[in-house]
Amino acid sequence: MFQTRFIPSELVYDGTQLATHWPRRTAGVTGDCVVAFLGPAEVPTENLVDLVDRRAGERITARRMLHLIGVWFGRTLAETVLRQRLYVFLTAERLRLRGLKVLVEGDDLYTPDRRKLSVSIATKSPLAGLIHLGLNDDPAGAPVPAVGLTELGVGAADFARELLEVFEDAESGLESAGAKVRAVE
Amino acid sequence: MFQTRFIPSELVYDGTQLATHWPRRTAGVTGDCVVAFLGPAEVPTENLVDLVDRRAGERITARRMLHLIGVWFGRTLAETVLRQRLYVFLTAERLRLRGLKVLVEGDDLYTPDRRKLSVSIATKSPLAGLIHLGLNDDPAGAPVPAVGLTELGVGAADFARELLEVFEDAESGLESAGAKVRAVE
Amino acid sequence: MFQTRFIPSELVYDGTQLATHWPRRTAGVTGDCVVAFLGPAEVPTENLVDLVDRRAGERITARRMLHLIGVWFGRTLAETVLRQRLYVFLTAERLRLRGLKVLVEGDDLYTPDRRKLSVSIATKSPLAGLIHLGLNDDPAGAPVPAVGLTELGVGAADFARELLEVFEDAESGLESAGAKVRAVE
Amino acid sequence: MFQTRFIPSELVYDGTQLATHWPRRTAGVTGDCVVAFLGPAEVPTENLVDLVDRRAGERITARRMLHLIGVWFGRTLAETVLRQRLYVFLTAERLRLRGLKVLVEGDDLYTPDRRKLSVSIATKSPLAGLIHLGLNDDPAGAPVPAVGLTELGVGAADFARELLEVFEDAESGLESAGAKVRAVE
Amino acid sequence: MFQTRFIPSELVYDGTQLATHWPRRTAGVTGDCVVAFLGPAEVPTENLVDLVDRRAGERITARRMLHLIGVWFGRTLAETVLRQRLYVFLTAERLRLRGLKVLVEGDDLYTPDRRKLSVSIATKSPLAGLIHLGLNDDPAGAPVPAVGLTELGVGAADFARELLEVFEDAESGLESAGAKVRAVE
Amino acid sequence: MFQTRFIPSELVYDGTQLATHWPRRTAGVTGDCVVAFLGPAEVPTENLVDLVDRRAGERITARRMLHLIGVWFGRTLAETVLRQRLYVFLTAERLRLRGLKVLVEGDDLYTPDRRKLSVSIATKSPLAGLIHLGLNDDPAGAPVPAVGLTELGVGAADFARELLEVFEDAESGLESAGAKVRAVE
Repeated sequence: MFQTRFIPSELVYDGTQLATHWPRRTAGVTGDCVVAFLGPAEVPTENLVDLVDRRAGERITARRMLHLIGVWFGRTLAETVLRQRLYVFLTAERLRLRGLKVLVEGDDLYTPDRRKLSVSIATKSPLAGLIHLGLNDDPAGAPVPAVGLTELGVGAADFARELLEVFEDAESGLESAGAKVRAVE
Repeated sequence: MFQTRFIPSELVYDGTQLATHWPRRTAGVTGDCVVAFLGPAEVPTENLVDLVDRRAGERITARRMLHLIGVWFGRTLAETVLRQRLYVFLTAERLRLRGLKVLVEGDDLYTPDRRKLSVSIATKSPLAGLIHLGLNDDPAGAPVPAVGLTELGVGAADFARELLEVFEDAESGLESAGAKVRAVE
Repeated sequence: MFQTRFIPSELVYDGTQLATHWPRRTAGVTGDCVVAFLGPAEVPTENLVDLVDRRAGERITARRMLHLIGVWFGRTLAETVLRQRLYVFLTAERLRLRGLKVLVEGDDLYTPDRRKLSVSIATKSPLAGLIHLGLNDDPAGAPVPAVGLTELGVGAADFARELLEVFEDAESGLESAGAKVRAVE
Repeated sequence: MFQTRFIPSELVYDGTQLATHWPRRTAGVTGDCVVAFLGPAEVPTENLVDLVDRRAGERITARRMLHLIGVWFGRTLAETVLRQRLYVFLTAERLRLRGLKVLVEGDDLYTPDRRKLSVSIATKSPLAGLIHLGLNDDPAGAPVPAVGLTELGVGAADFARELLEVFEDAESGLESAGAKVRAVE
Repeated sequence: MFQTRFIPSELVYDGTQLATHWPRRTAGVTGDCVVAFLGPAEVPTENLVDLVDRRAGERITARRMLHLIGVWFGRTLAETVLRQRLYVFLTAERLRLRGLKVLVEGDDLYTPDRRKLSVSIATKSPLAGLIHLGLNDDPAGAPVPAVGLTELGVGAADFARELLEVFEDAESGLESAGAKVRAVE
Repeated sequence: MFQTRFIPSELVYDGTQLATHWPRRTAGVTGDCVVAFLGPAEVPTENLVDLVDRRAGERITARRMLHLIGVWFGRTLAETVLRQRLYVFLTAERLRLRGLKVLVEGDDLYTPDRRKLSVSIATKSPLAGLIHLGLNDDPAGAPVPAVGLTELGVGAADFARELLEVFEDAESGLESAGAKVRAVE
């Protein structure tokens, strides 16, 4: 059963949170889940999961982000990458319902003036597929032109709770979509 | 290697096109692919893949739709449902880039006045995962309030070709996303 | 999310209930589930899923059984056979907690005097793994020496509800067992 | 081809034996197998595979246990957890056939006076699913009320050989169960 | 456990033998296996598994072939196609050890004068991966220039038994190859 | 999309090249691929992937080899071992087309005088199946009687390019073989 959890205290995201058992250790959630929290992003190059970025010596830095960590046990990376793309679109959809203009490019969110709102990655552990989706709240320190939820007039904690509900609905929709069709030839 | 094909002649979609080997038989494409064509939708109740709809005695009817049929060999239904949702969002994104307002709800596209633009289903055969995405062009005959690409000022054939390119890019992005990350713990 | 359901009205089990979408059609449960009901077993040879039995021209007949039909989407047959064996043992365990003596042999339950209490099979559809577990209530008509729940002093409807709870707990235990271990070398 | 092996010399189980290639290195068995041996259990907290137990700072200690280590290549953790539960039940069944009373709770065996007879865990390596099942022989040092095979009048070495036969039969039964059914709808 | 069987009586191969349970029904082998027999090939167009050939209206005909039917439960088509190619090469290797010159092209065997020695296909059922490999013994009736084992001086029945041993060794080698390596990064 | 690449500069193969992201880091190829290069083989015992060889304290040494490193994302070890065997046969086939006599035994190539031409291994990382195939060019230093491409009159760089083409064709053939058959019962 898919679960979600919002951790009310702020935590630094340094990349080590993208780990199979982090949600269980930190938020007490066992099983498939998305856990949200707010806090700075300070991911040193060596912790990057995207090896292209790591090679380029990049870092992920922002004064404050809304972080979403998802874990799905027993899933392939191919399936997890698809889920990540879907989650990015679901996030964009909620921003648009608030009247905001955002663009989705691959797994990135931008404002129309080409400022980056998000970082995201999908990966795999020996036991699970994992996703990190980070939305800038205060993008100070970001290595590229960036924008944050605060500037867009979106309360990060409220939006976290909204997204967790949206993701829960989406997972439930995905599950029933796979259980109400007949096979074809 | 993922391929796309646009069939220039119009064909009736009656549900039997959602079949593993239909793209090979009809468009000569062997392997993972999306094939697009224009034509009426006349899916009788007994051909519906969505068993909830079938039970309700529904039908899919429209005078003209843009049909996209996708086949991915060796994929699970869970993965195919994720891909279907992603494809619906990618379609919405292209409409928005044309300045149109559309809403995504699950695997459906609506205009803000709650008229339905699309039908879609994901399913599985013994050999492949399959997707049908149909976008109304002329929605006459649709059993619910509906809208079509023509009314929205979108040329269906042009949009077909645009979507095929978008899907090809997306598949390529998905593939490389799964091949450039390190595993985590 | 795994669900269970008890259908209060009696139904004949003739083998066609062992089908992916039967729980949805009959009990309104979409997704992984076990559905229980009481009723006669009248499975003609040609409906048998066990091909060894079918070849031998066997039939499954009993005046009244407790039937449990389980469906797990996207699972392999190998996994479903393991689950079936586990469910048979879980059933035996509950009978023993009531002070009854039963023996488990493969996927069969016997009383110490070698009378058969159960029939069971695991199989696969294009979309799911499926299990049928039938416990004789009134074994009249069974083709082998048989015993029923009534004779053992077990109320079939009560036991159905008890088993559904046990299976729900077991599924939840299985899920968390897979989400609280570290990988090894 | 599934194989079993009994190692006649005693070995300490400290957790590092739960490793893909331990049976090959130690007992010369290549491929899916269960290997049994007798010896003390001295698993320090940091070697625990169950992360809930590890977090609680627990240890596994007993003066002498019957250890069973199983490895199944290419299997998922979900399947391995099912197999583990089945093996625990198969073990209980053999004790009952000797006239002993045991209770199965999840993956634990107890005597009716709530003393623990076993420890068990299922996990995964990059190449295989793995199971450890330990049955106390002399439970001295166990951190909870415990009972051993000696006190129950069961010879540990004899029982090891008996279980290996039982597991071999069970694996053979599982394999043929998956190869004698027809698929359903 | 992989098994092989040679059926001493001749049988007509008409395509319906390429079925999950045919080896069990006909040769009493349950589980992964290759079954060999001699007999005419008379596969009408509508029984062809290769849909390209079927579309072209082809047939498979030969007065006498050595037929090998293989079934591997729970395997994907991708894996089965690889196994088929390997089996074709293993067959060629044995012919070469007898001093014969053969060429392997895809899944076909030819003599240097471009006469076809074999037909072969890999496919999937809901439960298994399946392979048919047919070697002409007397190619009379073949729709293309063909050669048979008799003309090559190879006794078909002897060669059948030789191949079954070779395939058994190969399966055992494949299994141990997957159980004696360490994982890499 | 499967890709191939020949690295023109010589590199030492010490075993660390058999890694998921080595082709991307070294040759800029992202995704399924085979990368070829020439250079010495100096694999210390502790880098061996074959644990039987590692245990025996063996090493892989040769003054110059043609190395082929293949990576297939998301594939099982069982499938990768099959592919490895196929690649070895494909290599033998090309040597025979040049009039050379070679024998295939398991995953090894020999000349008729029992000198070893190749080393090969298939393994798995958390993300991919991997293959190393090394063909001696100058076998000096090999721990067993060995032969090299130079002595056989085969230009290693030319043969590398030939093999890459052959593997590309084979992968394309495998893919279409899985996309042109109907399923059977």
